[in-house]
Amino acid sequence: MSFQSGLNMGKGRTEAFSDGVFSIAITLLILEIKVPHFIGQSNRELAWALLSLWPSFFAFVGSFATILVLWINHHGLFTLAEHAAPQFLFANGFLLLFVIFLPFPTALLAQHLTGPGANTAAVVYCGTYVLTNISYHLLLSAVASPQSIRKDVSPALIRRIRIAYMFGSLIYITATVVAWFHAFAGVLICSLFWLLLTQLSYSEKHDRNKSWFDE
Amino acid sequence: MSFQSGLNMGKGRTEAFSDGVFSIAITLLILEIKVPHFIGQSNRELAWALLSLWPSFFAFVGSFATILVLWINHHGLFTLAEHAAPQFLFANGFLLLFVIFLPFPTALLAQHLTGPGANTAAVVYCGTYVLTNISYHLLLSAVASPQSIRKDVSPALIRRIRIAYMFGSLIYITATVVAWFHAFAGVLICSLFWLLLTQLSYSEKHDRNKSWFDE
Amino acid sequence: MSFQSGLNMGKGRTEAFSDGVFSIAITLLILEIKVPHFIGQSNRELAWALLSLWPSFFAFVGSFATILVLWINHHGLFTLAEHAAPQFLFANGFLLLFVIFLPFPTALLAQHLTGPGANTAAVVYCGTYVLTNISYHLLLSAVASPQSIRKDVSPALIRRIRIAYMFGSLIYITATVVAWFHAFAGVLICSLFWLLLTQLSYSEKHDRNKSWFDE
Amino acid sequence: MSFQSGLNMGKGRTEAFSDGVFSIAITLLILEIKVPHFIGQSNRELAWALLSLWPSFFAFVGSFATILVLWINHHGLFTLAEHAAPQFLFANGFLLLFVIFLPFPTALLAQHLTGPGANTAAVVYCGTYVLTNISYHLLLSAVASPQSIRKDVSPALIRRIRIAYMFGSLIYITATVVAWFHAFAGVLICSLFWLLLTQLSYSEKHDRNKSWFDE
Repeated sequence: MSFQSGLNMGKGRTEAFSDGVFSIAITLLILEIKVPHFIGQSNRELAWALLSLWPSFFAFVGSFATILVLWINHHGLFTLAEHAAPQFLFANGFLLLFVIFLPFPTALLAQHLTGPGANTAAVVYCGTYVLTNISYHLLLSAVASPQSIRKDVSPALIRRIRIAYMFGSLIYITATVVAWFHAFAGVLICSLFWLLLTQLSYSEKHDRNKSWFDE
Repeated sequence: MSFQSGLNMGKGRTEAFSDGVFSIAITLLILEIKVPHFIGQSNRELAWALLSLWPSFFAFVGSFATILVLWINHHGLFTLAEHAAPQFLFANGFLLLFVIFLPFPTALLAQHLTGPGANTAAVVYCGTYVLTNISYHLLLSAVASPQSIRKDVSPALIRRIRIAYMFGSLIYITATVVAWFHAFAGVLICSLFWLLLTQLSYSEKHDRNKSWFDE
Repeated sequence: MSFQSGLNMGKGRTEAFSDGVFSIAITLLILEIKVPHFIGQSNRELAWALLSLWPSFFAFVGSFATILVLWINHHGLFTLAEHAAPQFLFANGFLLLFVIFLPFPTALLAQHLTGPGANTAAVVYCGTYVLTNISYHLLLSAVASPQSIRKDVSPALIRRIRIAYMFGSLIYITATVVAWFHAFAGVLICSLFWLLLTQLSYSEKHDRNKSWFDE
Repeated sequence: MSFQSGLNMGKGRTEAFSDGVFSIAITLLILEIKVPHFIGQSNRELAWALLSLWPSFFAFVGSFATILVLWINHHGLFTLAEHAAPQFLFANGFLLLFVIFLPFPTALLAQHLTGPGANTAAVVYCGTYVLTNISYHLLLSAVASPQSIRKDVSPALIRRIRIAYMFGSLIYITATVVAWFHAFAGVLICSLFWLLLTQLSYSEKHDRNKSWFDE
């Protein structure tokens, strides 16, 4: 008894579920920016209150960009898989755990980045990215297993992606250590690293002038 | 006048709607972990405040894993159905009611697990899983009815799934009783049972080396 | 220049967007049930605090069932449409406005059903259903227009659905008036009416033993 | 090695992700309307408390309509693209950032429109639409680039859309300036402009009697 069509739907449904989680997690980020709530504020006072929310906006934009790039990379990994094998589903679930968790360190950072607990908040923020990066390593290993991978994917491509992820591990661990001594510097490394991540291609030949999905 | 194509879309749209509910319920779990909010906290104080949130993190991870496994089992049940008959849609609605409800006992537990009301919180938490388990029994019965089931599904497979669900009933009822006397022990049984649930296969022959969706 | 394929995607994408809104609105209902938050509560006190939340649970279940049935009826209406004409999209948007709004009167009712402001809360709750019902009338009119309707849908079917919706108008207006004098009775009428709505069929011949989507 | 089918899924998945973000952002708007919470309120007091929430309802309806129309226009732009080129994905991400952000200025406006800080709140509200409009300009440019655009789209169509967007820039900048002097007037311009935006067609020949998606 063969369920070939069911198999494809299985992978498709996992992808759709993951997309749902990514899009909800990225949208929930806005709930952590609290509206200044003193009713009697004048125009000038309200403007200052909004400006003093800058750590919230900074954390919001950084986490938004990171989740978006995580999602693009998630899609890239899925294009390499043929089957949704059990270890693939477990690794994907582990990854989603951290995607869902991200609004918490974002809110923590927004509230404490300018206070005396900034280092703790920044270490937790950067440390979450270390764990997220580990979950991508696990998903890559699951994708690269013989049960899951598409036959036309070369070992060279997997190696190239793994090196990129290891570079990511290095960056995020560095950021966590830096955050221990200088909160803002550590966070800045995390928040800007997504710019590099966008340059990662999940196809055999990397050509900057074409789409990631296109090559 | 025949609506055969409409029928398939009907089942597909029910599945997509359910997926949406599962992915939102699992993501809303993070909203229940509240950021420690005393502005003047030092690094050390904030670190302790975060560590004292461990019941929140514990409840978050347990509920996350459970909803994920419930979703995988939901998908398994859907692959057995050919038609979306009315009793199938009702049973699915009843099940979604409890999936949506889960963030509430999770938050309740997170807030009271270390307090004097721990047993009440734990009984409500475990009891919710008893009710969720009953809703899976109902959905299985709806799927197994002649109006809904695919012709190539054997009674042996339905029997095997029903036995697994009955084992689940036993575990969750036990956990609820245990929670009455020892809150943490009861919750631990609930939170770990999902590991067993991942071993349940919805296809004719169970082969551990292949994907659930794949066999 | 013909966009026939684009047209079908247009209707499909509107349906997917609406499904997303329905599934999020139904899941957000749980956020309105607030966890009893006094840390020092004993098991007995917490149990009583939970039991005193019964208006929240009552409103939650009533709104859950109603949104689910609204969604099933929304799907029924969409199966009758061939094209997504502008008035169809406007009517659908108007309907989604009330679907999104529903968590607010639900929370209002949950908080005031047992207090001295119960009648106001109940009138707002029932009144929202009157407006939601009007939005279904508008969507039906948009679907039944020559630009939108499928050629094989008979005027008799449209008439039957319109009569059912008018019966709904009557029930919801009655409930709103009743709520003015007896809050709970009015809400009960609203919360139970969805049981009748599930009996509405969107296909030419109504046969109770078959699925709505199936006939 | 050709990934033509992967390419189409790439564009489809970006569209599905964007749809998810739009539908969540529009549904989260309701969370910003807070239920009046004094338990002892009489029917009359509660009714007045609800009426005094009118800025919340006004902001809710205005933002709802705007996000809905932004979504329809987003769909229109996507129908013109053949490929999901990198600059297209970046522009889309930039646009989603503002869609997700919209619940914040909406809540800000709801809380301060009748207070002494009304002008600041209104300027932030209108200013967000200026930025959103800029993100649509960027997405249009990305769509119109040779890497992305469908071959059968004429330069005349792109020009017509660009002029419409520039008209939008003019309106939103005017609204922001007006809001500086008269908060409500500025907001009203923003909230009503979506009525004009619905008249924008993304196909070669504009015919009011047919669907946007249909022509």
